[in-house]
Amino acid sequence: MELYESIERIRETKPLVHHLTNWVTIYDCAQITRSVGALPVMAHSRQDALEMVGIASALVLNIGTLDDELVDTMVLAAERAAELNVPVVLDPVGAGATTPRTEASKRLLDTGAITVVKGNAGEITTLAGGVAEVRGVESMAAEGAEAAAGMLASEGRIVAMTGPVDHVTDGGRTALISNGTALMGDVVGTGCMSASVIGAFAAVDPDPFEATVNALSSYGIAGEKGAVGSPTPLEFKSRLIDGMASLSIEDGGRMKVKR
Amino acid sequence: MELYESIERIRETKPLVHHLTNWVTIYDCAQITRSVGALPVMAHSRQDALEMVGIASALVLNIGTLDDELVDTMVLAAERAAELNVPVVLDPVGAGATTPRTEASKRLLDTGAITVVKGNAGEITTLAGGVAEVRGVESMAAEGAEAAAGMLASEGRIVAMTGPVDHVTDGGRTALISNGTALMGDVVGTGCMSASVIGAFAAVDPDPFEATVNALSSYGIAGEKGAVGSPTPLEFKSRLIDGMASLSIEDGGRMKVKR
Amino acid sequence: MELYESIERIRETKPLVHHLTNWVTIYDCAQITRSVGALPVMAHSRQDALEMVGIASALVLNIGTLDDELVDTMVLAAERAAELNVPVVLDPVGAGATTPRTEASKRLLDTGAITVVKGNAGEITTLAGGVAEVRGVESMAAEGAEAAAGMLASEGRIVAMTGPVDHVTDGGRTALISNGTALMGDVVGTGCMSASVIGAFAAVDPDPFEATVNALSSYGIAGEKGAVGSPTPLEFKSRLIDGMASLSIEDGGRMKVKR
Repeated sequence: MELYESIERIRETKPLVHHLTNWVTIYDCAQITRSVGALPVMAHSRQDALEMVGIASALVLNIGTLDDELVDTMVLAAERAAELNVPVVLDPVGAGATTPRTEASKRLLDTGAITVVKGNAGEITTLAGGVAEVRGVESMAAEGAEAAAGMLASEGRIVAMTGPVDHVTDGGRTALISNGTALMGDVVGTGCMSASVIGAFAAVDPDPFEATVNALSSYGIAGEKGAVGSPTPLEFKSRLIDGMASLSIEDGGRMKVKR
Repeated sequence: MELYESIERIRETKPLVHHLTNWVTIYDCAQITRSVGALPVMAHSRQDALEMVGIASALVLNIGTLDDELVDTMVLAAERAAELNVPVVLDPVGAGATTPRTEASKRLLDTGAITVVKGNAGEITTLAGGVAEVRGVESMAAEGAEAAAGMLASEGRIVAMTGPVDHVTDGGRTALISNGTALMGDVVGTGCMSASVIGAFAAVDPDPFEATVNALSSYGIAGEKGAVGSPTPLEFKSRLIDGMASLSIEDGGRMKVKR
Repeated sequence: MELYESIERIRETKPLVHHLTNWVTIYDCAQITRSVGALPVMAHSRQDALEMVGIASALVLNIGTLDDELVDTMVLAAERAAELNVPVVLDPVGAGATTPRTEASKRLLDTGAITVVKGNAGEITTLAGGVAEVRGVESMAAEGAEAAAGMLASEGRIVAMTGPVDHVTDGGRTALISNGTALMGDVVGTGCMSASVIGAFAAVDPDPFEATVNALSSYGIAGEKGAVGSPTPLEFKSRLIDGMASLSIEDGGRMKVKR
């Protein structure tokens, strides 16, 4: 599906994008979901979360403030989503920094229910079994990250490794996206929000690879437009979020994707 | 009490408005409470929450990210508030979307301690036993919503059904409030924040029906003033919240209430 | 260490500032940590929190939305930090308002692991055993607060009592900081954020007394600069947070500290 066709479909059908997410960026994830035209919901207790999956068009899992019970619920929610053909996006925040984060991410991947795993170089490299340094939730170093992304991908699982250039692969196809701005690195939550945007695109596009490419491109384009005039970090964040609501058909021409 | 008299009383007496609320909009609920002139507090663990009720002037319950233990604590807090004549505002977020949300809302209403229940058409219609569609936390359809609001209201319980026109009733009296702006629908949290505003007004006005009408009117007026110049959604949200702090006696003349 | 030397060292070394904090202001605490140049992480479940201490350069504990399990984890995290010589900042939010808050704060102080305790007059006075009124999380009255701060301080524990003039003492040395602006009182979260800033400075400065003085001064200076032109409260908050990222060597000359 073309980028703008996806956006129009999101705005018209208002898909429900269900989140089990962290408490730090939960508001921004909800608001960017709304901004792109979808309906956000955040429900984390067992029964509530599982019922929400039943009416959702996409599920976003983010382990940023995980605990044992939440991870158990995420596993059940992912499995239920897979049964219902609801696409699942995983943001393995801080995988590589601590054992619980690495293990929770692996356990979620092992369900086979993850449609797209989106992380920074350190997180993706860790999950592919490579060597990386993750300081808290920040990638400090990663060896052979692109190869790691390829190894983690499979026919049914897209890997989106974000950074100055986003690297998206399903093992066969690969896309390099250079949209975006360095300002994104100055604001807490830009990574988390990108997973919500992928969720919204995956909710309306049957090809999760194209959905991920379109989502990250449009997010980067909104970032580029928001960066005009060198706003301060929080000014930029508001513009980035609000900018998703005003993307137009012309913005499709700003995509910088190399396949 | 007149609208501006209420605002002055809030600013002078700084009533404590205690919240057991959700993790998505918790900051905005706290900040708008502060902005209207009251003191917010958010405390959700059992003993802490119950002690806070003992020094609070209003209690706001919001089930947006409920879990079993939180709902049990909400029931106890509501009962304690009723004993102490502290008004209780319930925001039954997503009632109708999942069983836990519908049941928690009913259980809270069954305590008899709820002074004002504020929800969208889908939530209110669901709780009155009618037919409605709630997608996540959004009302998509509701049959006979106004009649439902009337049925749910009683002498001791105000129903505030919010939408393009807010419908407030205690079963006998009814008020239709047309203040507000469509921009409120573009921002996550405007519904939650309105419950906090009702809490602040109910803290100083012995008539919860008038408190609710004044709260929703003033909130709508702040929205109208904030909408001037067509801000983007998050610009609007900041203006809406900050605008509550600068409402003046002249703004009372902007009320659009039909009784 | 001089104020600007500290800031440069934070920006160069990007220390990890780990938080166990509340759900109301968690985003703002993360973002101001990033803004000052450090890396924030928020991890509250037992094993995850303890592993994060192992790679952190400072630990910030905030009891704003405490529960029993979280307090137990805070105690363990503080003890682990002390073993590793990681400085610990405690924000005893609402101590004096309810028993759980007062007791949790005392328990954390009793670990002997708290490097800096930062609170308002009511909280500090309560913890020193004095008479104070804390309404929710707000200090309404405190008797003999400065003497209380002195009593609570000890060789290994700095007390930072914030207000129109911040009072910092280690029992021997005392500093009075008059930087800041009244606008800080109009925004939820300015207290919590100041603890994060202290954490970032303490991460790079071996003298926690000087770290605290520099942190509160620079925070106040960012506030003064942000207050120019009388912004509305949320405009001010964004400027305050973003302002920490643009402090320059010249700003060191704006310090108003009396020793």
